[in-house]
Amino acid sequence: MPRWKLTIEYDGGPFSGWQRQPERPSVQGALERALGVLEKASTTVQGAGRTDAGVHATGQTAHVDLSRDWDAFRLAEATNWHLRPDPVAVLRAEPASEDFHARFDAVERRYLYRIAMRRAPLTLERGRAWRVPGPLDVEAMRAAAALLVGRHDFTTFRSTLCQAKSPVKTLDEIALDVEGETLSLRFRARSFLHAQVRSLVGTLERVGAGRWPPERVRDALEARDRAACGPVAPPDGLYLTEVRYPTAARA
Amino acid sequence: MPRWKLTIEYDGGPFSGWQRQPERPSVQGALERALGVLEKASTTVQGAGRTDAGVHATGQTAHVDLSRDWDAFRLAEATNWHLRPDPVAVLRAEPASEDFHARFDAVERRYLYRIAMRRAPLTLERGRAWRVPGPLDVEAMRAAAALLVGRHDFTTFRSTLCQAKSPVKTLDEIALDVEGETLSLRFRARSFLHAQVRSLVGTLERVGAGRWPPERVRDALEARDRAACGPVAPPDGLYLTEVRYPTAARA
Repeated sequence: MPRWKLTIEYDGGPFSGWQRQPERPSVQGALERALGVLEKASTTVQGAGRTDAGVHATGQTAHVDLSRDWDAFRLAEATNWHLRPDPVAVLRAEPASEDFHARFDAVERRYLYRIAMRRAPLTLERGRAWRVPGPLDVEAMRAAAALLVGRHDFTTFRSTLCQAKSPVKTLDEIALDVEGETLSLRFRARSFLHAQVRSLVGTLERVGAGRWPPERVRDALEARDRAACGPVAPPDGLYLTEVRYPTAARA
Repeated sequence: MPRWKLTIEYDGGPFSGWQRQPERPSVQGALERALGVLEKASTTVQGAGRTDAGVHATGQTAHVDLSRDWDAFRLAEATNWHLRPDPVAVLRAEPASEDFHARFDAVERRYLYRIAMRRAPLTLERGRAWRVPGPLDVEAMRAAAALLVGRHDFTTFRSTLCQAKSPVKTLDEIALDVEGETLSLRFRARSFLHAQVRSLVGTLERVGAGRWPPERVRDALEARDRAACGPVAPPDGLYLTEVRYPTAARA
């Protein structure tokens, strides 16, 4: 059973999330259905990150075992053909070692969160960004973000549904960049807690809007209490952009 | 009857084009319906460019006469409220002189055309770019674009439906930029012929794909024959980004 590593892009809008669920559209389900046509047997696609409903990906990574031998290019093409019309695409298929695990072998995950700072409703960017009505104080947000980077107990910033054993994670980077009316926040860590990025973004937005002083973010972090979190940002602006593996695990 | 200048953004996907048509969704119709709620009388919205079905705008400009006095901010907000759920937004409303004409006073129009150079089907960019399966030779396209800039008879590059009196136009600029897998082509002219940008893009793509030598574009231009045009690029990648007016006409 050759194992494959797939790099996957999707518009999360129409899906109830990555994870397969009975009678609800999911990205995993769409991929398993498409690969199932090629495979004539049930296939399990294991993703690196279980993105929530409405969350997008430009670099989700998954592995799957297929019984037939495939050429990498033809496998991607055939899978994409059978994925239509779902907005999911295999960007790349690569042969992987038989013990490669998309989720457990990942050493870094990167997320992008896009905020549209404008008064007018979104049209072309609808579902692709979080609109906030005014300009945000990006310098204040950077100061607050600096308090969040590092190894911390992120209990405040994880969903009450989070199943991770420990709330302690190391957040390696939060980078903020403005281009026109778009504020991009980039997050980098080995792994994230459930709804962690959206919880952090919603909290940083309060700082940018002048409603929270940056130091309140430290208090929220130290409270280790979900109630201390700012509002959770909507899924529309969130993209899983990259999953990295040790070089040896790549092929 | 105070006259207003509106700057408008839209996702052209669900519309049969800018222009009002009986029983078909149009951007002009959506705006006139929304403004009609405020105005309690029929309103005519005159746009600077009549974009085709599926063509987008981030900076369409229009004028409209309203009988009531409005605060500019509240007019934009109220119009956007009544435009919902159509993907059309008024970015800005500005009082204009009573003889301001969005179409006839325009001295420059700018269009962007986005090409996604990749094998995989589009997901997040679906309807927002034209996907071509391989990388394009951008240098060859630049050489061909240089042959098109300037004052020419563009008969080859206009729709047979074009109603302009003369096919002679001055194309001020075609700029090509690559960022990742996206090739952006920016066009600048006082005015354009019907389907001119898409005809030019479709022809330049043939050059980029290595199917036409750049000089064939000169032959096509000199032929003054629609049959000499390359395939017309799809509307998905086209955006009307800006319309400029002499400073005196602005307010």
